[in-house]
Amino acid sequence: MKYSDKILNTPSSFIRNILKVTDAPDVISFAGGLPNPISFPIDEMQKSINHAIEENGAKLFQYSTTEGYLPLRQYIAAKYNKSYGLDIAPEDILITTGSQQALEIISKVLLDKGDGVVMEEPGYLGAIQAFTMSEPNFYTVPLEEDGLNVEQLKNTLQSNPNIKFIYVVPNFHNPTGITYSKEKREAIYDVVKDYDVVLIEDDPYGDLRWNGELLPYIGAGRLENSVVLGSFSKIVTPGMRLGFIITKNKELLHHINTAKQATDLHTNIFSQIVVHDYLVNNDLDAHVSKIIALYQEQANTMLEAMAKYFPSTIKYTKPDGGMFIWVTLEEGTSALEFFEKAMEVKVAFVPGDPFYTSKTNVNTLRLNYTNSSPEIIEEGIKRLGEILHTISSEKQLV
Amino acid sequence: MKYSDKILNTPSSFIRNILKVTDAPDVISFAGGLPNPISFPIDEMQKSINHAIEENGAKLFQYSTTEGYLPLRQYIAAKYNKSYGLDIAPEDILITTGSQQALEIISKVLLDKGDGVVMEEPGYLGAIQAFTMSEPNFYTVPLEEDGLNVEQLKNTLQSNPNIKFIYVVPNFHNPTGITYSKEKREAIYDVVKDYDVVLIEDDPYGDLRWNGELLPYIGAGRLENSVVLGSFSKIVTPGMRLGFIITKNKELLHHINTAKQATDLHTNIFSQIVVHDYLVNNDLDAHVSKIIALYQEQANTMLEAMAKYFPSTIKYTKPDGGMFIWVTLEEGTSALEFFEKAMEVKVAFVPGDPFYTSKTNVNTLRLNYTNSSPEIIEEGIKRLGEILHTISSEKQLV
Repeated sequence: MKYSDKILNTPSSFIRNILKVTDAPDVISFAGGLPNPISFPIDEMQKSINHAIEENGAKLFQYSTTEGYLPLRQYIAAKYNKSYGLDIAPEDILITTGSQQALEIISKVLLDKGDGVVMEEPGYLGAIQAFTMSEPNFYTVPLEEDGLNVEQLKNTLQSNPNIKFIYVVPNFHNPTGITYSKEKREAIYDVVKDYDVVLIEDDPYGDLRWNGELLPYIGAGRLENSVVLGSFSKIVTPGMRLGFIITKNKELLHHINTAKQATDLHTNIFSQIVVHDYLVNNDLDAHVSKIIALYQEQANTMLEAMAKYFPSTIKYTKPDGGMFIWVTLEEGTSALEFFEKAMEVKVAFVPGDPFYTSKTNVNTLRLNYTNSSPEIIEEGIKRLGEILHTISSEKQLV
Repeated sequence: MKYSDKILNTPSSFIRNILKVTDAPDVISFAGGLPNPISFPIDEMQKSINHAIEENGAKLFQYSTTEGYLPLRQYIAAKYNKSYGLDIAPEDILITTGSQQALEIISKVLLDKGDGVVMEEPGYLGAIQAFTMSEPNFYTVPLEEDGLNVEQLKNTLQSNPNIKFIYVVPNFHNPTGITYSKEKREAIYDVVKDYDVVLIEDDPYGDLRWNGELLPYIGAGRLENSVVLGSFSKIVTPGMRLGFIITKNKELLHHINTAKQATDLHTNIFSQIVVHDYLVNNDLDAHVSKIIALYQEQANTMLEAMAKYFPSTIKYTKPDGGMFIWVTLEEGTSALEFFEKAMEVKVAFVPGDPFYTSKTNVNTLRLNYTNSSPEIIEEGIKRLGEILHTISSEKQLV
């Protein structure tokens, strides 16, 4: 049997395959991207479930509208308008089955085979997967410590009129943990505003900031083709798969709506009503503050352990929020080979390879700190450090 | 901005657009395909939610596996093995966000642009929408009262080596309500077994039978490329969006898994665990029996009203289960024009047009009976009958 070109070219998730190996209870895993389960508001969710069923009855269990539950879209609009001074209406929002689905739907709406997509390098591997299903040409622009390289972005847009959209994760980027600076956001806006392309700002981690101030989006509120993606996965629950698309481009959102219908009719309405009930009857800011305090402690523990146990030649990012640290090994060290050695001492992470659309055998890797206790983080980094010191001295011998 | 060819060619759901017009409380609507809300086991679901949270805690709220919750897949395998004498393992099953998503994912896995899909004529419009996103060529085979026209199916397969799959709804077909006979199933199997194509049997209504005996699937258990789709939407709840794909073709299921990852990572795990808890702690057969009794009464009421109020020239199907009746008006009568006249007297249905990939202005239409009381059904059919008698006598005058 012959399968489609697009599925044969789509990478099966490297991370999910790694997770199968690293799932053993004695493995210290910095590989996943899971929120800490102690951050889930289970008791409050139970109350909201009871309340929502009592109030809405059969409505929670029936088919519903493609665009999503109106009160939830009203809540999202109000939240973004308050935080960012935007002018978003509920009609500018469509609820998706997690923001992974948003990526896949937008690529179907915009991309014919061979159309161009600008990706950060390194970039979010779930986005690479989702976009690949539409068979685009990827144009990568290097990610610097304050955001995309603006000069290269400009050149890429100039040279490739087939580009349909630019995909960025401006806050606490996956995989690198970096955040775009205010100046870089302005500079990127100045470049993008002259092109007929969509700017997708994927922002699942934006609420999880423990350092620095909230920054405005690059395109939201001022670019006609601005799209912002959000999610309840990192602040309430990922298990209920609730994400959303915000855009004031009505034609774009109309096509997104048609694609959503064709894809899964509508998002789970039970979960939409329950999460909405949770959001309006609890103090979300207070809940998020607890998650932030937890993750900040874990991040600090990891950074301090890295300073203590890693050779000084190893470079890494220092996130202001979010879930990840990005490590750059010495030139010529293979992260994949390091991964194999690390697994021998039962420590896991994600080698950088799947975050690139064309490079392989890179010297970078992603560490997640949100799902391990401080003691486990210290122990895991210590073991990684021992291997890195050995690799480093072997190199010097050569 | 330029959108993708595939989205520009995908029909926005005719039904959903109609539903917006027919949503007014004073309209008698036979247009939707909604289960009757009184069939939702709300109290039992509330118990299962409490029980599942108590037993599983954070697991209901965390990310989960792409293939779906193992105990739910075990339940589905056991159910199908018992009912159909099949040999399905949990590993042969993937849980989807409703069976609409199954259609969309399978088409992505199998179809390159221009590849062939065999569709029943008329066929399920949600499938037409989902497949269209992969830009196939549709080859239609007429649906007779006992299933596909076998001779035409054979000719179509012979003449078109680009055909990747055949899509059928063998039980209580949407939109026609017909069921494939045992003989027709055999005859179709005999044709399909000689071709390297996938046979998709979409079966969301199979449990809802009040007349005749359970029939074996066409391909399941004997065709290498058999796919059966199922759903909990019509027997438990559609709002939680739970469907599933069953195939023993491991390579196909592997690709489906990759596509599912890229599409939305995994299906809502909260809903999977809750519905599983409901299924193992309640008598599903007893619950389904109640739904069947309800729908049978509604169907009989509609059929009796049609016999009473419709001109004898109007033909219609007499379903053995499911949710729909298919009406064929006199030659030359436009169902769309009839729809406009029906809306003037506040009765809605779905004109046949969206169920065809190439025909328009047809003389067929779909009636749904599951979501109206017997009194309302009688009244709605009476109003439709009056219009049909007027149309009929105007024709005779001409």
